[in-house]
Amino acid sequence: MQLDLPEIIDFLTTHLGDGGVIRDPASVERYTVDWAGNRRGDPLVVARPRTTHEVATIVAFCHRNVIRVVAQGGHTGLVGGALPDTDHPELMISLERLNRVRSLDPLNLTMAVDAGCILQQIKDTAEAEECFFPLSLGAQGSCQIGGNISTNAGGLNVLRYGMMRQLVLGLEVVLPDGRIWNGMKALHKDNSGYDLKQLFIGAEGTLGIVTGAVLKLSPRPSMSRTALLALPSIEAALELYDQARRHCCDLLSAFELIPRACLELAFEAAPQTPDPFDTAYPVYVLLDITASGPVDLDSLVEQLFEAGLSSGQVLDGVLAGSESQANQLWKIRELMVEGQQRRGEHLRTDISLPISSIAEFFADASHRMATLSPESTVIAYGHVGDGNLHFNVLPPALPLEDQKALLQRLETALFELVERFDGSISAEHGIGRTKQRPYWATLSDTEKELLTGIKHLFDPQQLMAVGRILPEIPENE
Amino acid sequence: MQLDLPEIIDFLTTHLGDGGVIRDPASVERYTVDWAGNRRGDPLVVARPRTTHEVATIVAFCHRNVIRVVAQGGHTGLVGGALPDTDHPELMISLERLNRVRSLDPLNLTMAVDAGCILQQIKDTAEAEECFFPLSLGAQGSCQIGGNISTNAGGLNVLRYGMMRQLVLGLEVVLPDGRIWNGMKALHKDNSGYDLKQLFIGAEGTLGIVTGAVLKLSPRPSMSRTALLALPSIEAALELYDQARRHCCDLLSAFELIPRACLELAFEAAPQTPDPFDTAYPVYVLLDITASGPVDLDSLVEQLFEAGLSSGQVLDGVLAGSESQANQLWKIRELMVEGQQRRGEHLRTDISLPISSIAEFFADASHRMATLSPESTVIAYGHVGDGNLHFNVLPPALPLEDQKALLQRLETALFELVERFDGSISAEHGIGRTKQRPYWATLSDTEKELLTGIKHLFDPQQLMAVGRILPEIPENE
Repeated sequence: MQLDLPEIIDFLTTHLGDGGVIRDPASVERYTVDWAGNRRGDPLVVARPRTTHEVATIVAFCHRNVIRVVAQGGHTGLVGGALPDTDHPELMISLERLNRVRSLDPLNLTMAVDAGCILQQIKDTAEAEECFFPLSLGAQGSCQIGGNISTNAGGLNVLRYGMMRQLVLGLEVVLPDGRIWNGMKALHKDNSGYDLKQLFIGAEGTLGIVTGAVLKLSPRPSMSRTALLALPSIEAALELYDQARRHCCDLLSAFELIPRACLELAFEAAPQTPDPFDTAYPVYVLLDITASGPVDLDSLVEQLFEAGLSSGQVLDGVLAGSESQANQLWKIRELMVEGQQRRGEHLRTDISLPISSIAEFFADASHRMATLSPESTVIAYGHVGDGNLHFNVLPPALPLEDQKALLQRLETALFELVERFDGSISAEHGIGRTKQRPYWATLSDTEKELLTGIKHLFDPQQLMAVGRILPEIPENE
Repeated sequence: MQLDLPEIIDFLTTHLGDGGVIRDPASVERYTVDWAGNRRGDPLVVARPRTTHEVATIVAFCHRNVIRVVAQGGHTGLVGGALPDTDHPELMISLERLNRVRSLDPLNLTMAVDAGCILQQIKDTAEAEECFFPLSLGAQGSCQIGGNISTNAGGLNVLRYGMMRQLVLGLEVVLPDGRIWNGMKALHKDNSGYDLKQLFIGAEGTLGIVTGAVLKLSPRPSMSRTALLALPSIEAALELYDQARRHCCDLLSAFELIPRACLELAFEAAPQTPDPFDTAYPVYVLLDITASGPVDLDSLVEQLFEAGLSSGQVLDGVLAGSESQANQLWKIRELMVEGQQRRGEHLRTDISLPISSIAEFFADASHRMATLSPESTVIAYGHVGDGNLHFNVLPPALPLEDQKALLQRLETALFELVERFDGSISAEHGIGRTKQRPYWATLSDTEKELLTGIKHLFDPQQLMAVGRILPEIPENE
């Protein structure tokens, strides 16, 4: 870094206008403490550009003066990707003021947006035009679409609508040298040359800062049905999933697996919540079917339920009779996550497996965790239709250092098992900084070389989001 | 090139076994003349490996000895990508013997295949397991999945199931230096690091040779309905599309626009074909709705038809009452393409536009073509739901050189218009060699630099599929 801090602040103040630079400790707090509240990082300074051009101006300035940069959206990430690196000071670019919906085309089913638009704002804007932006996740009230794109966000509706990557038609990116790449095409089909946008989606800001996107919308479903079904086992849940995919002819938009232990965490978080059933069952499935047009959804859900009952896959079920009942069922899933949070530090993972391996993995992994730490509680649930499990472990009360060491051992053992099952250690949260080491350890030399080469091509000075996905100093092997 | 031909042949013969090397002119014909039959290119020699390892051995040999390589699948491409370059001799690697289905997992809805598997073989294999591989295109009886992946193939069902890119979960690639990248994961969700496979999909073999893939399957639809509707105008077709997307709640799997002039080409190709209607109408839409499970498709189609009739979007319609009637309707679309072929050399394009611009583009482009060449006939049809038009022009009878010059002028004028409408000059066929120049002319300096950088990273010696997508000698600007 060739400049001192006052010079940097002076440049930013000149170019970003009122409120464009934040430094005082009280205001900076929300940029520096991560969503889970247990990690902190201090940036050089927080810059808040309002336009793509302003982002480009800051990045070019950093490039000229060899200043590290990290972008931040809603700061709801779970792997420390947007958290500033205190050891190597970074200028933080918050996209929060770059938040206009640029345009919406209902016939083309597309919407052009700034990267700083909040996901819920995008969903609401689409809905007002009888369209639907399907990305749905817990943080949607505060996460930003630029962050969703940079982390290739997933969530509840991936089964039907795909991940963020499938929902991006065009992209605008400020490259690490400050140039703007304008790839804002609103085309459903474009096969001309390398698809550059694919490189930036999911790259966690290491190859450039996403400043705008053209999103793919769907027609707004006008009806939905939600059901909570009680099942005897994980195996039954997988059979039911297979059945439901065929029976509901692609109208299934969510299929969540919730073992009993998870449901109990929801009751722990909100003790007034009634158990939807009279009896405790081993496993539950929460599913959504949505459609527009003249389809009889009630009969679809009821027939699926009846077929499950008669084959023994399903033991009992609650079909939501109204939107508010449906919301209550989904509320249980939210409370379950809240219940986990309250238990304090725990192993939180985000793995994926071939769907056909889930039952075996579940058994093996539970056994492995129990062997390593009999007092721990496995809390594993997930988006079964995507093969995505949040296989989490709540440790027993221990001195802090012992607990950390235990969680580390459990993670290592779990990730080994994931690799043995040809799974992924990150299905949707990404790699960021917290999973950088275990991720890198899974790569072949060829992969390490290709990734490092790509990073070097876009960011030869190693200034942008350094230490995320790739190691701090690329290993040349 | 440091070796002479006998040395190359000797190496190949030693490593590829019986039938692994083809040289005699009669046998080599099908590799050297392209699908349309009007372009030809002679390779150094045709190598036919049977395994990924054999592909890697050949590529490593070429890398060591600075021999150019081009891969070929079913050789049904339309832009000369797999056609050997006679001016700069290339060793051709035909993937046709690398054609095993490696595995199929019905619960995970995935299938692992060799690159040389023929698309129809893959579709049939999936169907036998009650699964469905949705990629559907005219050449499916001979095109190979490796070519489909390398060109990011589209076809008829993109509207519902996406292009090839959306149907690939895992990939195996032989890199230009002969190393094998194994990315054959069968995961529906994987968010760990840069998604390397995206680089190879649609790269037309310029970054590596795809040797295997894990494909994403869908549940097999058990019912389908096909309808041919007659409409007053392109505008009405777009309104109907909007209506159909909402009304058919994502069960619409094809929506083809066919103006009258195109229908007449079908009758020209097969004069015994009856006009499905008593009267000639300006525009037709051919649509498919498919589902499995208890959905009343008849009522879906009938209600769409009735609504169209009463709003005036639809003037008349034929709903296929049986599979054979449905096939007859689709046959008309095939014949239409055949009718064009019979007219000889013509301007064949594959553009895409925002769906909301199609009507205006159609009018502007037709006017522009008529101004430039009043005797030409515009034959424009396409996958409206993808914004993808085959805007083709049949020239009048002219001396060959004059005709070529005319077609060139028409193409240039059309592509200018496409750019003005923020469209793409290639929605599905790709760039290959025939569109390399007009494509490159649309790029910004930043894009040219990034593309060239990526090519250089993977293939620094410029040996693989040279001259496809990127210019022969990358421009450093």
